[in-house]
Amino acid sequence: MDTKDRPQKQGSVNSGFDFRLLHKDLESEARLGKIMTPHGEVDTPVFMPVGTQGTVKGLTPEMVSDLGAQIVLGNTYHLYLRPGHELIRTLGGLHKFMNWQHPILTDSGGFQIYSLGALRKITEEGASFQSHIDGSSHFIGPEICMEIQEALGSDIMMCLDECVSYPAEFDYAEKSLDMTLRWARRCSAAKKNDCQALFGISQGGVYETLRRRGIEELIDIGFDGYALGGLSVGEPKEVMRDITAAFTPLLPEEKPRYLMGVGFPEDIVESVYHGIDMFDCVMPTRNARNGMLFTSDGKVVIRNARYREDDSPLDSECDCYTCRNYSRAYLRHLFVAGEILGLVLNTIHNIRYFMNLMKEIRDAIRNDNYKTFRKDFMFRLSYAGPENN
Amino acid sequence: MDTKDRPQKQGSVNSGFDFRLLHKDLESEARLGKIMTPHGEVDTPVFMPVGTQGTVKGLTPEMVSDLGAQIVLGNTYHLYLRPGHELIRTLGGLHKFMNWQHPILTDSGGFQIYSLGALRKITEEGASFQSHIDGSSHFIGPEICMEIQEALGSDIMMCLDECVSYPAEFDYAEKSLDMTLRWARRCSAAKKNDCQALFGISQGGVYETLRRRGIEELIDIGFDGYALGGLSVGEPKEVMRDITAAFTPLLPEEKPRYLMGVGFPEDIVESVYHGIDMFDCVMPTRNARNGMLFTSDGKVVIRNARYREDDSPLDSECDCYTCRNYSRAYLRHLFVAGEILGLVLNTIHNIRYFMNLMKEIRDAIRNDNYKTFRKDFMFRLSYAGPENN
Repeated sequence: MDTKDRPQKQGSVNSGFDFRLLHKDLESEARLGKIMTPHGEVDTPVFMPVGTQGTVKGLTPEMVSDLGAQIVLGNTYHLYLRPGHELIRTLGGLHKFMNWQHPILTDSGGFQIYSLGALRKITEEGASFQSHIDGSSHFIGPEICMEIQEALGSDIMMCLDECVSYPAEFDYAEKSLDMTLRWARRCSAAKKNDCQALFGISQGGVYETLRRRGIEELIDIGFDGYALGGLSVGEPKEVMRDITAAFTPLLPEEKPRYLMGVGFPEDIVESVYHGIDMFDCVMPTRNARNGMLFTSDGKVVIRNARYREDDSPLDSECDCYTCRNYSRAYLRHLFVAGEILGLVLNTIHNIRYFMNLMKEIRDAIRNDNYKTFRKDFMFRLSYAGPENN
Repeated sequence: MDTKDRPQKQGSVNSGFDFRLLHKDLESEARLGKIMTPHGEVDTPVFMPVGTQGTVKGLTPEMVSDLGAQIVLGNTYHLYLRPGHELIRTLGGLHKFMNWQHPILTDSGGFQIYSLGALRKITEEGASFQSHIDGSSHFIGPEICMEIQEALGSDIMMCLDECVSYPAEFDYAEKSLDMTLRWARRCSAAKKNDCQALFGISQGGVYETLRRRGIEELIDIGFDGYALGGLSVGEPKEVMRDITAAFTPLLPEEKPRYLMGVGFPEDIVESVYHGIDMFDCVMPTRNARNGMLFTSDGKVVIRNARYREDDSPLDSECDCYTCRNYSRAYLRHLFVAGEILGLVLNTIHNIRYFMNLMKEIRDAIRNDNYKTFRKDFMFRLSYAGPENN
């Protein structure tokens, strides 16, 4: 491995943003890296907890940081609507507003607008949509999308893209891809702030020719990082894995690679194997609030009666605040009683589970052991605890 | 002042429980003291945050402790119903269950049962009631009340009492008082655990002769502390204040005196003046969750539009985590967006406000300055901020 133990300096057009590929696993595409941003460094592969509305739900920023998170994701769509990007700009940007001094990636809002269904209309110019909060009418095109993310002041911005449903006809996917590529050029041209990085997003549905052409054109435009988008939108899991396996290697090796909206621990482990560096998903936080907890012994649905008198920790292998201090019986009580602290303690644990997973992943890559790690992880998963049988 | 700077050792029948009167203010009945319990000491006058269901809503125990709280209140009624006192006993008691290693006072459940209205029936034997959760039928008499609180393992237990509505006929109040006193004797007799203190509760409505006789009989039974109960149940504020002023001095000087369910900062300041040592109320925590915040400049209703762009801290004189790190604009955003963190940050601030108030109260007593402190506090209150005019 020519990159082994030999940090590579990669060029970047952005002052303060950089990516270093530190090591590649011997037997897979798995990569160890480091992202440098004006607000600090991020070890990759990384999982980014989602802070939709300017907060990782239920946790203080110190809790999020103490759990090992080095970067969080902010949702442009939500913050644009409430409290408004101009207000956040006036108050000193999103970092200051939410008291998070570490890196932030903002999405483009494209996926949330796509999720609005009948409430949105996409044209060449951009996306017209109605607010899910009050029905008011809005328009976000590529230029406005850049303006909003620059107002938020995130370290990494995402291009506005159109997300295509699964399944989609080839003709629709192709037209959509072409528009997304024109939007990518408009985003790149509209971007004003050199201190913020900009990532391009690969679309093209499940069609190989489209995915391939899309990636080539994105590379031609030139971005600070590249994302695989339009996945986790209803397609079978195998399709998502196949696309990740097939197209991640086409992304530039010297730039970070981001699989958007993923996901389950097993999907993360699998995607890292194919060379993905970055992930985000609401799952650990949302599932925590629904009482679904990830443990080394499989899923735990904490409201179940079997935990009523269970004085053992949620996960005996976990080092988080929740597992060190509380019993399953207490967590069940809090959940059943509808107590806020239950949501907080569950969220702490689930985020820590993901952070520990990412650390194990990085350690395995560093030790050229990723193939074995992946195999062991999938084996353990198939024998996971009582809720999983 | 013969007690000045000369800690008095007062006797106690409970191993581990004690009260020391450290100082009496020169110009009022205000007292500085210290309660010793098996789980640590409590400086009085003290405000006890309420942890109804085994958690001070929204906060970790470390947060509660870091805010300056030395003791919390647990609700016997709620914990009896859910998760059940036997379960908590099996799991090692309430301290361990909720991970709170400092003192706990449990109420008797009497007030919650009283609040059930048509769902409860009081007889000489005790209180029959239906659960507010599932309508199931239950009975708690004085002996069971002690058994539950001993299972919970609180440091301070309260006698079961009947709370009388305001207004109440003299005859009803008298009969109720006599029954409450018989219940107090039964509680005292039923109590088994010498490591837990037991407080008696004064009832008698607004009737001087009843209050006086009730207190005399409670003292005759002999308790580790004495509470004024049956106040803050709808009577005019002046009535509550008059009763506190008239009857607090009748309570034994060498025992802690507890005004249950109080309350507003001005009521605390006033009651300390008449010699009360202990308070509890859901107000700081409940109001926080409703967005009503106590500040040195008066009340702040955080959802108001006037705070939309307000980048100043909630209370410029407050040293809490919330005021040190967040703007009113951010707190308003979290509240309007329904974010859990908003409830957490608001609760942190309101509890800190009460803890700082109690510290100022203790400092004023220590400096023989309580009369001036009280006057200044009431003056400031009358000129308090924009929400209060």
